[in-house]
Amino acid sequence: MKAVRVHEYDEAPTLDDVPEPAVNGPHDVVVQVQGAGVCRTDLHIIEGQWRDKSGVRLPYVIGHENAGRVAEIGPAVTNVAVGDPVILHPLVTCGLCTACRAGDDVHCSASAFPGIDTDGGMAEYLLTSARSVVRLDPSLEPADVAALADAGLTAYHAVRKAAPRLRPGTTAVVIGAGGLGHIGVQALRALTATRIVVVDRSAEALELAAELGADETVLADGSQVARVLEATGGDGAHAVLDFVGEGGAIEDGIAMLRRAGGYFVIGYGGRLDVPTIDIISSEIDFIGNLVGTYNDLVELMALAASGRVRLHTVKYPLDRFAEALSDLGRGRVRGRAVLVP
Amino acid sequence: MKAVRVHEYDEAPTLDDVPEPAVNGPHDVVVQVQGAGVCRTDLHIIEGQWRDKSGVRLPYVIGHENAGRVAEIGPAVTNVAVGDPVILHPLVTCGLCTACRAGDDVHCSASAFPGIDTDGGMAEYLLTSARSVVRLDPSLEPADVAALADAGLTAYHAVRKAAPRLRPGTTAVVIGAGGLGHIGVQALRALTATRIVVVDRSAEALELAAELGADETVLADGSQVARVLEATGGDGAHAVLDFVGEGGAIEDGIAMLRRAGGYFVIGYGGRLDVPTIDIISSEIDFIGNLVGTYNDLVELMALAASGRVRLHTVKYPLDRFAEALSDLGRGRVRGRAVLVP
Amino acid sequence: MKAVRVHEYDEAPTLDDVPEPAVNGPHDVVVQVQGAGVCRTDLHIIEGQWRDKSGVRLPYVIGHENAGRVAEIGPAVTNVAVGDPVILHPLVTCGLCTACRAGDDVHCSASAFPGIDTDGGMAEYLLTSARSVVRLDPSLEPADVAALADAGLTAYHAVRKAAPRLRPGTTAVVIGAGGLGHIGVQALRALTATRIVVVDRSAEALELAAELGADETVLADGSQVARVLEATGGDGAHAVLDFVGEGGAIEDGIAMLRRAGGYFVIGYGGRLDVPTIDIISSEIDFIGNLVGTYNDLVELMALAASGRVRLHTVKYPLDRFAEALSDLGRGRVRGRAVLVP
Amino acid sequence: MKAVRVHEYDEAPTLDDVPEPAVNGPHDVVVQVQGAGVCRTDLHIIEGQWRDKSGVRLPYVIGHENAGRVAEIGPAVTNVAVGDPVILHPLVTCGLCTACRAGDDVHCSASAFPGIDTDGGMAEYLLTSARSVVRLDPSLEPADVAALADAGLTAYHAVRKAAPRLRPGTTAVVIGAGGLGHIGVQALRALTATRIVVVDRSAEALELAAELGADETVLADGSQVARVLEATGGDGAHAVLDFVGEGGAIEDGIAMLRRAGGYFVIGYGGRLDVPTIDIISSEIDFIGNLVGTYNDLVELMALAASGRVRLHTVKYPLDRFAEALSDLGRGRVRGRAVLVP
Repeated sequence: MKAVRVHEYDEAPTLDDVPEPAVNGPHDVVVQVQGAGVCRTDLHIIEGQWRDKSGVRLPYVIGHENAGRVAEIGPAVTNVAVGDPVILHPLVTCGLCTACRAGDDVHCSASAFPGIDTDGGMAEYLLTSARSVVRLDPSLEPADVAALADAGLTAYHAVRKAAPRLRPGTTAVVIGAGGLGHIGVQALRALTATRIVVVDRSAEALELAAELGADETVLADGSQVARVLEATGGDGAHAVLDFVGEGGAIEDGIAMLRRAGGYFVIGYGGRLDVPTIDIISSEIDFIGNLVGTYNDLVELMALAASGRVRLHTVKYPLDRFAEALSDLGRGRVRGRAVLVP
Repeated sequence: MKAVRVHEYDEAPTLDDVPEPAVNGPHDVVVQVQGAGVCRTDLHIIEGQWRDKSGVRLPYVIGHENAGRVAEIGPAVTNVAVGDPVILHPLVTCGLCTACRAGDDVHCSASAFPGIDTDGGMAEYLLTSARSVVRLDPSLEPADVAALADAGLTAYHAVRKAAPRLRPGTTAVVIGAGGLGHIGVQALRALTATRIVVVDRSAEALELAAELGADETVLADGSQVARVLEATGGDGAHAVLDFVGEGGAIEDGIAMLRRAGGYFVIGYGGRLDVPTIDIISSEIDFIGNLVGTYNDLVELMALAASGRVRLHTVKYPLDRFAEALSDLGRGRVRGRAVLVP
Repeated sequence: MKAVRVHEYDEAPTLDDVPEPAVNGPHDVVVQVQGAGVCRTDLHIIEGQWRDKSGVRLPYVIGHENAGRVAEIGPAVTNVAVGDPVILHPLVTCGLCTACRAGDDVHCSASAFPGIDTDGGMAEYLLTSARSVVRLDPSLEPADVAALADAGLTAYHAVRKAAPRLRPGTTAVVIGAGGLGHIGVQALRALTATRIVVVDRSAEALELAAELGADETVLADGSQVARVLEATGGDGAHAVLDFVGEGGAIEDGIAMLRRAGGYFVIGYGGRLDVPTIDIISSEIDFIGNLVGTYNDLVELMALAASGRVRLHTVKYPLDRFAEALSDLGRGRVRGRAVLVP
Repeated sequence: MKAVRVHEYDEAPTLDDVPEPAVNGPHDVVVQVQGAGVCRTDLHIIEGQWRDKSGVRLPYVIGHENAGRVAEIGPAVTNVAVGDPVILHPLVTCGLCTACRAGDDVHCSASAFPGIDTDGGMAEYLLTSARSVVRLDPSLEPADVAALADAGLTAYHAVRKAAPRLRPGTTAVVIGAGGLGHIGVQALRALTATRIVVVDRSAEALELAAELGADETVLADGSQVARVLEATGGDGAHAVLDFVGEGGAIEDGIAMLRRAGGYFVIGYGGRLDVPTIDIISSEIDFIGNLVGTYNDLVELMALAASGRVRLHTVKYPLDRFAEALSDLGRGRVRGRAVLVP
């Protein structure tokens, strides 16, 4: 089959002919890929930034946001059948450790991450496990939702954790209405009746956010902290969801937060640097957010099936992967790029 | 009556003759003070560190950890009667704002703080409100519990927030087994069956911690991170309660934390400075902790009445307040100093 | 002033001239009534069904769903000013008991209930307390929201308790889409992305429910249990909100419930009668629901101000109260009847 | 191997020679049984009460509270090794359904129940799954904890659900201090600082309860409701844990409950029959409780390893199973009977 493989860091991946994966273990599932999201992380992998973290042996197949149809299943697989449309949770988890047994499979003590530390989905077929496949509602096309598998799932997970604080009458600030943030806005709208204030440097991104359910938008032109405080009677927001995590976003976000408020760290790159007395005296929390659980992905797909979460995608045939990566690198992709057969 | 008042910052307070406070408003309560805790914050007030924050007009009476007997009540007071033994919540709150209405009175939008921004309890009598008095179980002496009103309440509040994470089989690390920390150990023991590991620089403090319920003690001699990791099979603790909040404690504490763990910031002085990628990739939380609510104080007094929380106190007559302050400043007080009539 | 008073049980109330209430205590608030909901409970009061429970002395003014403008305030009132538009929480609570201090003021150990056990709002003026008044958003007219003060608040409170169980992909059944139920549907829609299935005997009520956000409607014609099970793949619903509580509704509702599901008892009249082995073996819960808290009412008003909860009302001048009561008794009121000045 | 099998309902089981179970699937685990609890449910099985519910084909091996050492493992088993001491969760669950993925494996949509609907543990060897084995702390003997696998786990699970309501200063009533109840008392003591009041008909059971941590004991001699109300200032308890579930226990329990209190249904046999107006007006909940999850069992074993939960057992060699069943049927077993090799 055809597969996009990285052979050397800092060199362009190539489309190779490789053997199709086959079912080996009892819970194995082989999926015919119908959509593989192209993500900034793929660029970082090629640049070698994940070399040490992933420890993967080159060459290997990238692509960690995958959806398609079940092609083959192992003998112990009971949750999907051949032909089912599925989206893949980004992790392949053990199901036996304490975290898995608590439903918190993201913290599985023995997980694999296809596309990062083992072969991924920019290929015709992908090997995964029964524990990673979520059957899709017939109304959803795999290629349309593939890019929700990682980025969208992370945004949803953070919103799920913030939602209990966001009762009617509260205010939530979303910093950054890009790929993750605009899913975050839709998830907030679906799960809460909070007032959503979106902050971004791009007027275009703010326009999209308003269409997707934001109550107010604030251009990050230097006045953003003042404007959020003004919009909240000087008190600040009950929650800040920071999809940026670097530049001045963190300092801004903390300044926008109300006493007893919650700061949800989703984007990363910078440092959180704050005097402990400020944490104490306003009793604020900083909540880390990794990708969502398997059940979070099931819920996100329910939101997608009911039309509450939509994603704008640009499709490229698999053999034009290089163009997709290049467009992404140059900021030419509106929404998310997805490789299709 | 006699009262300890600050006249000028950086000068010793004096014992003055001042008018007794009287009931004015319908919810006013005048308490005959039987115990007023002497706290490091009192030293900081005298040094002028609170000058700007409190904005209090000098001279005024210090003392913010108070207990005694009700001497007089306003016409709308229904929860205590003259003669009742009481401990005082450190804040006088409005009862009408959203925070008060949610039981989260610590974040009252219009509170006063006797001993900090208005006259406090190092005196024969103190004016407070019906909303601030907790009636004591007959088995408790006001002077014995006074010092739980602020320091103890803060420790209890943090433990209450940490407890849901601390199921049997988990590990909690307590950093700092001093005034607050040793109440924290007792509260953890009362509210959970978690394994309690206490880290401190003082072997004596660790000995006390072990008596009070710590399962393991670790001397902070440079090997503390390694020893906590070893004690947790390399995974780290489910929660770290940091009663120090400065020096190397924060860096140590983060290094002792497990994936998805919670870091409870209680002590302060230093900075929390951590790359956002570390918060994301292990999905850890930093939870701020201020003093407890009124109901937290009710619960802490229930623990005290059942013998689950004890406090070692050293009593000084009110007119020897200068000696108490001086002993505290020189590190000569074992446990907590309390002024008594 | 004019006031509708009950003089004898089982006799028609009369419109009397009575003295206007005046501010007496420091937290007293006198409200000029601009809307007083007319409720089935008023009919029950007149029939004497509340005689023993309320213990009220006749004659007295009925009306327990009230909104208007602040006419006079006591000296300790800080949360509203004269002229403010307000809705009244149905209870006047003490603010000092453990329940009040926890935000759970509905279980106040010393509350009064104007319109039930003391003078209510079918009058020109009403005496209440600072703790009972919620200031309205300028966009809301008191007469339009008055009827949310009790019935709507109860529905909202139940939905708030059910919401954490209702993640995307779940199903909630609402039994009874009448006065409370149709508020329940709107609150469910605002607070969750669950699938809402409404069951009622009236096709007209189901039509309204569909307009207000129900995903599916089921006519209670004998096939309702089978149809709900069918709609849930045979598993049943994650939550049943029973706004009827009598007739066959309870048996139906239990049969519609999924393993580990929650049954929210809101309507009343009948008995809950179920073998303990059925409770055990499917591990289901029965959750009682009384009226909402003060903060619940604040939240409900936020939903009303944002247009997420609407109420159809029919207005009658105060002096035509008898017609309103009669219309209600004969089932001639569409939506809620409200007395206006 | 030797195994206790039921051949016909209402006839005594016999000790048969049957083939040893062997590993077949990848997650299979064969355990050498070192303790098999003898439970009242075994008597009910023999009497035929489970005939329709279980649908098991006779003959089959009974015994559903099992512990031992791992004898053989399938190729995909990573959480235990041959020779490990283990206790068995009573259910063998799928790991793939929504409930399993949420950590709520008790509600697995495709579980088996060895000893009930397939061969159990009154034998030399037992076939189970990697998902059902909990490795024991070296300090614990399988035979000593086997009887915690079902009865103890159920009690622990209920206490875990009740614990968040049981803050210091609250009261919990335990009805029935028998096999489950006395584990419940110990779990309450370990997980909370609530005041524990135990009600039982047997003075001997009450004595044991007091030794295990009960604060007060009340003989069920007809005065029990009055005495519990008296002990709670007339208000009733914050939670009632009913380990009886029949006879007058339920009516008593409800009468002992405070406003907004929680009634935990654990024992069964009778009916819960209560007017809906009583549920509404005091806003009480009835919470069903089935057996605990896998992680609940891990936690219970942590309590056992730390000495917080102890079980009195009487051991019988496997070939004297008939004597054990007979002693149990005649009420001659103090604590729990356990079959050992």
